[in-house]
Amino acid sequence: MTFHDLHHGAEPLLLPNAWDFASAVALHAAGFAAIGTTSLGVAAAHGLADGEGVARAETVALARMIAGLPVPVTVDIESGFGADVGELAAELAGLGVAGVNIEDGRPGGRLADPREQAELVRAAREGAPGLFVNARVDTHWLSVDQESTVDRARRYLDAGADGVFVPGLVREQDIAAVVEAVDAPLNVLHVPAIGLKGLGELGVRRVSTGSLLFRAALHAAVTTACAVRDGDPVAEGIPSYEDVRRLV
Amino acid sequence: MTFHDLHHGAEPLLLPNAWDFASAVALHAAGFAAIGTTSLGVAAAHGLADGEGVARAETVALARMIAGLPVPVTVDIESGFGADVGELAAELAGLGVAGVNIEDGRPGGRLADPREQAELVRAAREGAPGLFVNARVDTHWLSVDQESTVDRARRYLDAGADGVFVPGLVREQDIAAVVEAVDAPLNVLHVPAIGLKGLGELGVRRVSTGSLLFRAALHAAVTTACAVRDGDPVAEGIPSYEDVRRLV
Repeated sequence: MTFHDLHHGAEPLLLPNAWDFASAVALHAAGFAAIGTTSLGVAAAHGLADGEGVARAETVALARMIAGLPVPVTVDIESGFGADVGELAAELAGLGVAGVNIEDGRPGGRLADPREQAELVRAAREGAPGLFVNARVDTHWLSVDQESTVDRARRYLDAGADGVFVPGLVREQDIAAVVEAVDAPLNVLHVPAIGLKGLGELGVRRVSTGSLLFRAALHAAVTTACAVRDGDPVAEGIPSYEDVRRLV
Repeated sequence: MTFHDLHHGAEPLLLPNAWDFASAVALHAAGFAAIGTTSLGVAAAHGLADGEGVARAETVALARMIAGLPVPVTVDIESGFGADVGELAAELAGLGVAGVNIEDGRPGGRLADPREQAELVRAAREGAPGLFVNARVDTHWLSVDQESTVDRARRYLDAGADGVFVPGLVREQDIAAVVEAVDAPLNVLHVPAIGLKGLGELGVRRVSTGSLLFRAALHAAVTTACAVRDGDPVAEGIPSYEDVRRLV
């Protein structure tokens, strides 16, 4: 199955998002069919701000480390890092990456002009024809200009995107409306109240965990340290030193 | 309080071990008085093997990111990365690092000749006179030549170490014997059956979490992804996107 095919299976593709080699390989070992990256995780792991276009080198370095895993890997490139997006897409494809996410959100909670964003999508498409280009529409994520969601999605698809990602879509009727209006696989963030099965029934084709796994990991590190300090038991099931060493 | 002073407080110093900027800053925000690093975490995050001396660049890069935190930071340099240990110690001290751990374990589960290891300790000491040099004795960790523990510890102290770290010490009588025999702060890994208070009563001056927090984080990422897949609830208390972004 190619990464494109995984968007057309019986169930929606559940895409867990890694931020370093260890998280990616552990998610692969747990049986997930593809791995994404989380720009929050990649940026924060290096002390950088997410979404401000400052983590290009770290993102490419991560892609280089994980593209060789035996499952497709898709990389969150924020809004392209202000670089030549076609060149970046080609570089990632050359490393063996299967897809990219490119977002129309901009620093300060703004949205890009949709025509300019369509040009970025087109550049990624032309830079790497085989890549699955997932066009992220940040209208709901940023709570800005939500009525433009479908128009933006269609423009990005016209420019060559393979799929559309609308994080922040959480209501059943909003999800169904975008599925209905857009002729490409729709990706949303995990919605606990609907669940993977329910999202599949609404027509969603890909469900991402976004930064959730990274935030869960950070939380576990802190709560474990606090448990040691306070004499409380730590979580059960933590892998041994040898287990983790074998994974890498 | 200097990092040296923290080894002589009323309670043993609890040292949580980070592997990237985010884990370090989150542990600092949780109130820990100093931060260490875990060589397993640093290596695995980059797809490298722990303890084989291959993660020098990644270790220095992490030190550069976290040395500016407003608490002392101590860095695990494995057995020195085969580099000039004095130069490495000076480089780390120059970045603002307060201490290093240097181990006598070698790839393949061997132990270094204690005379050679004492020279590494001496090189670190001379390269960075203000650094807290914690000499790790891997006799118990590797279950090799355990009767040499005290002799090794004394040689490393004679060579200028400030403290001794014996991971794998877990029995009360073994811990008490090393405390009694060695005239410097003893560091052990967290021993759940004894706890921080009990370790303090035995005379331990520093307790490290080693790779535990990294392994707990990895475990949380995988279990959270599996919970999303299986429709199970995820852990409570996970920080929000905004919480994590603010932390960095």
